[in-house]
Amino acid sequence: MSRHDKLFLGIDGGGSKCRALLCDAQGNALGTGQSGPANPNQGLQQTIESVIDATHQALQAAHLPKGAIAQLHVGLGLAGLNLPKYRTMVQQWAHPFASMQIASDLWIACLGAHGESDGAVIITGTGSTGMVSVDGEVHEFGGHGFSVGDQGSGAWLGLFAIRQALQALDGLLPSAPMVDKILDTVGCSDAQSLAEKMAGQSPARFARLAPLVIDCAKQQDPMATALVQQGADYINRLAHRLLAFNPPRLSMIGGLAPILFDWLDEDIQARLEPARFSPEYGAVLFARQHACEDTL
Amino acid sequence: MSRHDKLFLGIDGGGSKCRALLCDAQGNALGTGQSGPANPNQGLQQTIESVIDATHQALQAAHLPKGAIAQLHVGLGLAGLNLPKYRTMVQQWAHPFASMQIASDLWIACLGAHGESDGAVIITGTGSTGMVSVDGEVHEFGGHGFSVGDQGSGAWLGLFAIRQALQALDGLLPSAPMVDKILDTVGCSDAQSLAEKMAGQSPARFARLAPLVIDCAKQQDPMATALVQQGADYINRLAHRLLAFNPPRLSMIGGLAPILFDWLDEDIQARLEPARFSPEYGAVLFARQHACEDTL
Repeated sequence: MSRHDKLFLGIDGGGSKCRALLCDAQGNALGTGQSGPANPNQGLQQTIESVIDATHQALQAAHLPKGAIAQLHVGLGLAGLNLPKYRTMVQQWAHPFASMQIASDLWIACLGAHGESDGAVIITGTGSTGMVSVDGEVHEFGGHGFSVGDQGSGAWLGLFAIRQALQALDGLLPSAPMVDKILDTVGCSDAQSLAEKMAGQSPARFARLAPLVIDCAKQQDPMATALVQQGADYINRLAHRLLAFNPPRLSMIGGLAPILFDWLDEDIQARLEPARFSPEYGAVLFARQHACEDTL
Repeated sequence: MSRHDKLFLGIDGGGSKCRALLCDAQGNALGTGQSGPANPNQGLQQTIESVIDATHQALQAAHLPKGAIAQLHVGLGLAGLNLPKYRTMVQQWAHPFASMQIASDLWIACLGAHGESDGAVIITGTGSTGMVSVDGEVHEFGGHGFSVGDQGSGAWLGLFAIRQALQALDGLLPSAPMVDKILDTVGCSDAQSLAEKMAGQSPARFARLAPLVIDCAKQQDPMATALVQQGADYINRLAHRLLAFNPPRLSMIGGLAPILFDWLDEDIQARLEPARFSPEYGAVLFARQHACEDTL
């Protein structure tokens, strides 16, 4: 089979969702799939299950049999790979594909956003992180995971909303409409039950509260507004850091990106351009780059 | 065996340490013990091991055989019991004692601090929390655990120092001497290795960084000073909330208490009085209260 007959599968795996895009060698989309969380630092087994699930869906959508999985050249973009131990875990996976190339979610997002050209990208979804690629030089900032980083992300926003709500319920901070909305949504009646329900939950679970916080901020809720502003402040600083490398383009993607946009500084808003392609298409491009190298 | 021959053991279990105090029926100390973490939300097995270890040490110090454990009337004060699921876990333990009464770490601290009289107590060690007991009414505030609460505690201070240090290492915040000191102490050279090393660590591990942060704040490190001030601000608000119930006394205990004292508001400093007895002696008092009820 020559490069021109090959099947390429691009995977974009994050803390809440895993998306797959199946393309032919010319880059034409044949089918897509979407499954659950695929962040190796929340468990390798779940990541593998989500990747396989999304792949099967994409094959089915393309009217290909499950067995065709062995013919796929896969570009696998995953969050959390900036931590070497998780990268090693994924590399050791005895995958069922013809070939598999691993990249960070940032790398495939950047490839997709700028169509293999230079540029910078900010991801803010369940987690947050930024990357710039200029003249063959690559720099990554932020990320660092839910427990010690990911400021300005959906999980961060949900976590800090819970932290503030608990203080309000204890009478240690002035309350705000957001507090009752959180209790309603989570199904709790007081600080104790809220703390018990949310302690130790996954980043994806906290990220599910982010739209509520943003909605409250839009309605001038003071507690929510302060949190969203704090998140936007971090994303502003991340954007300035990336722009210092003079990338020709800057894009911001991820589930929180469109709703956080309005809170960013005007100079950052003015610099942001839409991503040309999706991260999963970036993953297809990444797989094709390697297939191309293989045939040289 | 009458109440007057009984042996009472008080246990104070927290996120970093477990202390045991063995007393006779008159309250005379016979022996003490100290072991590792005993916070059920970090694992019941570790909690049980720490409790048994500290108990054996106290028996040994009192020149009593290990088998005497079956004669002990135990008051067991533990952090994390405000969450019902952890209380149930501990209650179901098939303990080796003659009897065991369970209370929160706050309750035994308050009993100890004010010698069974009314009063309020703030604990700030690995975690943070506050309680007031006046005229039979009891109110608890704060706590809520490492992941969503415990502001102004040692673990919180360590966690947020890591969060800030990572931002400084990414060039997203001005750096400060504290950042290099953290890297040295943890044995890392950059943001990536620091994030990998600290992600998912225990509250006790984060709390071990608190003295470093406080030392930096004493030397006017701007990043450390802001963090310590933020922690002190939370403890100030907690103290005001407790004082609103007009307790005759207010004490602040725990590993971070003496070093955080200097950063508190003057009116709070003026109200703080030393604890009369230790939390583990409070646990002995608690066990004796129940033994007394039993013989009525």
